[in-house]
Amino acid sequence: MKKQLTVGLIGYNFMGKAHSNAWRQAPRFFSLPANLRLKTVAGRSPDRVAEAARQLGWEQSTTDWRTVVEDPEIDIIDITTPNDTHAEIAIAAAAAGKAILCEKPLGYDLAQCEAMVAAVEKAGVVNMVCHNYRRIPAVALAKKMISEGAIGDRIYHYRARYAQDWIADPQFPIVWRLKSEIAGSGTHGDIGAHIIDIGRYLVGEFSEVIGLTETFIKQRPLQAGAGPGLQASASQETGEVTVDDAVSWVGRFKNGAIANLEATRFAYGRKNHITFEINGSGGSLAFNFEDMNRLQYFRKDDPAGLQGFRDILVTEPTHPYGDAWWPPGHIIGYEHTFTNTFADFIKAVVEGTSVQPTFRDGLENERVLAAVSRSAEEKRWITL
Amino acid sequence: MKKQLTVGLIGYNFMGKAHSNAWRQAPRFFSLPANLRLKTVAGRSPDRVAEAARQLGWEQSTTDWRTVVEDPEIDIIDITTPNDTHAEIAIAAAAAGKAILCEKPLGYDLAQCEAMVAAVEKAGVVNMVCHNYRRIPAVALAKKMISEGAIGDRIYHYRARYAQDWIADPQFPIVWRLKSEIAGSGTHGDIGAHIIDIGRYLVGEFSEVIGLTETFIKQRPLQAGAGPGLQASASQETGEVTVDDAVSWVGRFKNGAIANLEATRFAYGRKNHITFEINGSGGSLAFNFEDMNRLQYFRKDDPAGLQGFRDILVTEPTHPYGDAWWPPGHIIGYEHTFTNTFADFIKAVVEGTSVQPTFRDGLENERVLAAVSRSAEEKRWITL
Amino acid sequence: MKKQLTVGLIGYNFMGKAHSNAWRQAPRFFSLPANLRLKTVAGRSPDRVAEAARQLGWEQSTTDWRTVVEDPEIDIIDITTPNDTHAEIAIAAAAAGKAILCEKPLGYDLAQCEAMVAAVEKAGVVNMVCHNYRRIPAVALAKKMISEGAIGDRIYHYRARYAQDWIADPQFPIVWRLKSEIAGSGTHGDIGAHIIDIGRYLVGEFSEVIGLTETFIKQRPLQAGAGPGLQASASQETGEVTVDDAVSWVGRFKNGAIANLEATRFAYGRKNHITFEINGSGGSLAFNFEDMNRLQYFRKDDPAGLQGFRDILVTEPTHPYGDAWWPPGHIIGYEHTFTNTFADFIKAVVEGTSVQPTFRDGLENERVLAAVSRSAEEKRWITL
Amino acid sequence: MKKQLTVGLIGYNFMGKAHSNAWRQAPRFFSLPANLRLKTVAGRSPDRVAEAARQLGWEQSTTDWRTVVEDPEIDIIDITTPNDTHAEIAIAAAAAGKAILCEKPLGYDLAQCEAMVAAVEKAGVVNMVCHNYRRIPAVALAKKMISEGAIGDRIYHYRARYAQDWIADPQFPIVWRLKSEIAGSGTHGDIGAHIIDIGRYLVGEFSEVIGLTETFIKQRPLQAGAGPGLQASASQETGEVTVDDAVSWVGRFKNGAIANLEATRFAYGRKNHITFEINGSGGSLAFNFEDMNRLQYFRKDDPAGLQGFRDILVTEPTHPYGDAWWPPGHIIGYEHTFTNTFADFIKAVVEGTSVQPTFRDGLENERVLAAVSRSAEEKRWITL
Repeated sequence: MKKQLTVGLIGYNFMGKAHSNAWRQAPRFFSLPANLRLKTVAGRSPDRVAEAARQLGWEQSTTDWRTVVEDPEIDIIDITTPNDTHAEIAIAAAAAGKAILCEKPLGYDLAQCEAMVAAVEKAGVVNMVCHNYRRIPAVALAKKMISEGAIGDRIYHYRARYAQDWIADPQFPIVWRLKSEIAGSGTHGDIGAHIIDIGRYLVGEFSEVIGLTETFIKQRPLQAGAGPGLQASASQETGEVTVDDAVSWVGRFKNGAIANLEATRFAYGRKNHITFEINGSGGSLAFNFEDMNRLQYFRKDDPAGLQGFRDILVTEPTHPYGDAWWPPGHIIGYEHTFTNTFADFIKAVVEGTSVQPTFRDGLENERVLAAVSRSAEEKRWITL
Repeated sequence: MKKQLTVGLIGYNFMGKAHSNAWRQAPRFFSLPANLRLKTVAGRSPDRVAEAARQLGWEQSTTDWRTVVEDPEIDIIDITTPNDTHAEIAIAAAAAGKAILCEKPLGYDLAQCEAMVAAVEKAGVVNMVCHNYRRIPAVALAKKMISEGAIGDRIYHYRARYAQDWIADPQFPIVWRLKSEIAGSGTHGDIGAHIIDIGRYLVGEFSEVIGLTETFIKQRPLQAGAGPGLQASASQETGEVTVDDAVSWVGRFKNGAIANLEATRFAYGRKNHITFEINGSGGSLAFNFEDMNRLQYFRKDDPAGLQGFRDILVTEPTHPYGDAWWPPGHIIGYEHTFTNTFADFIKAVVEGTSVQPTFRDGLENERVLAAVSRSAEEKRWITL
Repeated sequence: MKKQLTVGLIGYNFMGKAHSNAWRQAPRFFSLPANLRLKTVAGRSPDRVAEAARQLGWEQSTTDWRTVVEDPEIDIIDITTPNDTHAEIAIAAAAAGKAILCEKPLGYDLAQCEAMVAAVEKAGVVNMVCHNYRRIPAVALAKKMISEGAIGDRIYHYRARYAQDWIADPQFPIVWRLKSEIAGSGTHGDIGAHIIDIGRYLVGEFSEVIGLTETFIKQRPLQAGAGPGLQASASQETGEVTVDDAVSWVGRFKNGAIANLEATRFAYGRKNHITFEINGSGGSLAFNFEDMNRLQYFRKDDPAGLQGFRDILVTEPTHPYGDAWWPPGHIIGYEHTFTNTFADFIKAVVEGTSVQPTFRDGLENERVLAAVSRSAEEKRWITL
Repeated sequence: MKKQLTVGLIGYNFMGKAHSNAWRQAPRFFSLPANLRLKTVAGRSPDRVAEAARQLGWEQSTTDWRTVVEDPEIDIIDITTPNDTHAEIAIAAAAAGKAILCEKPLGYDLAQCEAMVAAVEKAGVVNMVCHNYRRIPAVALAKKMISEGAIGDRIYHYRARYAQDWIADPQFPIVWRLKSEIAGSGTHGDIGAHIIDIGRYLVGEFSEVIGLTETFIKQRPLQAGAGPGLQASASQETGEVTVDDAVSWVGRFKNGAIANLEATRFAYGRKNHITFEINGSGGSLAFNFEDMNRLQYFRKDDPAGLQGFRDILVTEPTHPYGDAWWPPGHIIGYEHTFTNTFADFIKAVVEGTSVQPTFRDGLENERVLAAVSRSAEEKRWITL
């Protein structure tokens, strides 16, 4: 008989919605070795978490996340709370022997990340940080192709950019993501983190980095009725932005490839524009998230005169995750990247195996983020 | 208190999977005026339909669709069975006073379509034929823009193509879709129907048509173990393809626009390539399903020197269905077109209003299909 | 010692400018077996033709084209005059034993074309009709690829469209191209002719056709000071458009492929948008003139999972005409298609060999044009 | 009566061919205030320069460039010789009172550049460094649009990349461009220089920079029969590459924008891939040289829901240089960028006005190049 796994979710906002969808959908589209029970969702506001439970498909809600972590029926703890609370919850969950899936970033800072890794490794529980973009089929295909030598045995360049435009207007008000004391980091940690993770996944470990960060709009309107530190008053109509608006940096990988990365929220017209290009000794790969069902591939050994970037529509049954979804040419969207991720996680939990990206990956990612930040502050190269 | 609507599904294959997903997902992403109960799925094979119920999220299964249609608890009948069975089920459901959502094509032939329209109009039940591509956000945006005059007050051209490649290999075997006695029609009715519906939706009614159909590969391998009429034997290794492989035609709309349409399963590299372009007196629109989150828009009144097709990424909250899904730049996929469709259908059922495309739209679509077929057979223009 | 060829040009407007450029540039970029002397340009207005001679690089000008045709020093007659004058000039040039390069269309009607073919074949002179788009490198590459089997041994579909927008505005005035008594034909003969020629070049001969033509704007403003029949007066402010604005048709080739073609001047945003797609049993090719240095190629035998349209940048030395121009990635433009054409013509003149497209090609093209026109007038299929 | 300008060209290789073409073509397509006489071309090999004179359209040739510079008939000296010879020739030409057009880079090093600027400014002669990409119509349009506020009053990002692939194969032999003692610099100075110039042209002056350079393939085959330092021998089959293969850097502009630039010859599939994107407070612009007739433009003030990057086909008569060439949609190519440049230069010579980019621009460009090189060598930020 098929195993059953019971899940508890901590946090129910944007990521809680995306995660809940993935828990609901994974068993519908993948042939999984376990049935899932979506038992409890935890949050701070009793009314809102109860409504979230109903809307998102959980049996019950609670305002005490500890009762979820300690619930002996629960096998998996899924963490989607604000960044500064990940560590406490994850460490408790590890101590309780739960498998853990934690939204990125792993922790608020390096120290938290290290403690989290130590906790899960000591407890020996299956652990995963949710870098869902690894399981965009086109990205997973890129990984497979690179492993099989499709772009040669050596990588020269990794070039990536994550561009958005939602705060490019100076009249956009101060929100918590623009205050370092709440968000920890700005563009760099929020979206720059993704293209670092993709670089580590597809190319390898970084060895040294240097870059700059910039805050283009340093004062923004405060809003009437906003939260603490964000609220307009008679005496104060604008507040200070204390995080970076953009980050731009270069570096080297241990395998000799060179890196060029940029993240910004100030690129009008770019909505969730994650682009990368990888150039190797046998060819090149290019990707754009806004066309996430496609992968561009140039193969140097194609016949002379017939060479060109191939526009691969990554929707075939032979493509990663392709047989779970629709026929060729019927594309998938953003939330499927979570569903693909959670399907792999569920298999790993049943089999008791490691599943990438682990908490250790989350820690390594944080180390790169911290090194880039430090290089910008100290205006010098930082070795990893 | 919110109303509850109970659904019964007849048929559980490819379209049954897509429809079940839409029933499950619509209430999670849309604010609907009713809760949904997914009660019964009906199919011919007891084991397979029971497995489908489990996999797709239905409370129970049955091999007798009549018990579903007659179930007093059930409000909505969803029909995804083979084309030649739609009429009987829909007419029974109308007689039982159910709201009906029927997968396209509406019926097997014009006579069946007419009987179905008569039945739902007599019964006064909410009825919809599932032309889900109308609710691709980019297509719905095109409709809205045309209504608001974004491409002017007159349309000159509608040009559309639906291209696939899954039978382009002559070694691809005979399957039921290639036998007219089972499928009714070939490429024309299966996929050509979609671009006729989009034309009727965005431009208007056709007035006259002429075209050709072609069967490029007339004999294909039979398969050992295939169904009746498709099975290889010692004496017979190939069977005759009795439907069209491609259709290509031109015509006129009642409003003076001219039409050029093509559907084929013989275009290598085109997977689900639905493209259209509409040229009006104030601008142009262009679309490609394989990039279905985008709409191209040329506006003749843009300033001289700054004109060009705008590549609209149709993922903003202000776009049709945009507020139900993810933030800008986070694209959606094929199955969301069903979810958007079903959300509108549910609202119409609660409100008791008409919702396009109705069975009558399905009938009109069939009339165009039949006229094109006849024009090809008789090699002459057919007036609608 | 290298041979010298002396050229006389009849006509000096738009096409005269493009042709003069090609005569000047061909020897600079190609290794030709002859030196060229650009001797005389002929035109009706003495002042304007003298100015053209100076601007375009001709030694002298004349208002009597017959003196050019009869000039014993001249080897090549290049005809770029209005369509209704091609025949008389070409027949005289053939009688004088000149090699002839004639701008398309070959003649004003079928009878003229037949007389022209008879004249050059009787005289045994090298003759070419200037369908310059055949020598776009990407189109020449397509020809070579098809010949070598790159898209298989059988072609299923030829689909082409030539779209412009320069008369889409109803306030655009009557010009000579919109009067059948002057222009002969409208969009069909002017630009539709090009995609017929490309179809004949790449796919083969047409066997039957049917289509429609349309004049969207039947009355347009007359202009003060315009030529006869185009001039506004106190009593008449608008004039009748007597040619087609658009043509749309389907047909069959003798080799079993099917055709779908459209030409229009009413597609806002399309400037010189010549697109075609060819689907064969081994792959597909697609082209867009506005990106004329590129050719899209899908090859069915690429490995599963790595298939996709290749975006070939046709600027390599191994590509047709590639070694005459710039390094890879340095694109060429519109007028280079003439230069490539003229280089081939010059070689043929020196070698005394036939060079495609011949006058006979021009005649065959005219036959297809006439058949489509007749099918539209008589509303029936026409067999070629 | 129209003035006549007489030109002397020093150097006749790749750039000599491109420059000669521009001198020949400019008067054919532009209405210039002077006639041109192409008098003398100078080179080192008597036979080859004589052949070049004939092929490229010069009246005579010489092996002594000083006779050209001193020729009283000559008004303009055009320098296309190896980089280390520019200074001597230009300084002599300035002393002789000639207008000077010098191929980039201006000089071999900063000292030479400074001497050249001093010479032309002292002599008061019209001087231009040939950064021809400024006069790609799309780039000139970008300049105009930025000046007119089309992307707002503030620029946030300049991001550019110049990628090629011609030495990505490790078996590609040592050539002079890969030896620093001959070429001065590698990828950085050869192609990176162009995107620095575009940045200075469109955005402004750089204030500080930091980056890295890399030589991926440090040993390459020597060739039998190659020049000194490049020649294979019995004892030595490979030679050392002494220039950079790639450069990647970040920086700041004086106006507060941030910069990210990369140049490489190791990106398979990228042939002459010059891409840039500029994000401002009112919109964005994006460009790709391989589609050089297009400019992408996002305007933040377009109506909500109808926003998207506009794909501007820069071939309209209202576009920069558009009225000199062909009708809309008929694209131009690489060499036209020189013709546009030379037309502007000729006008400036006749009018005696300054014409950008001046030698001073060439010097400023060199300063940025040197700063980036130094930042890579010393691994620290360099202030400009």
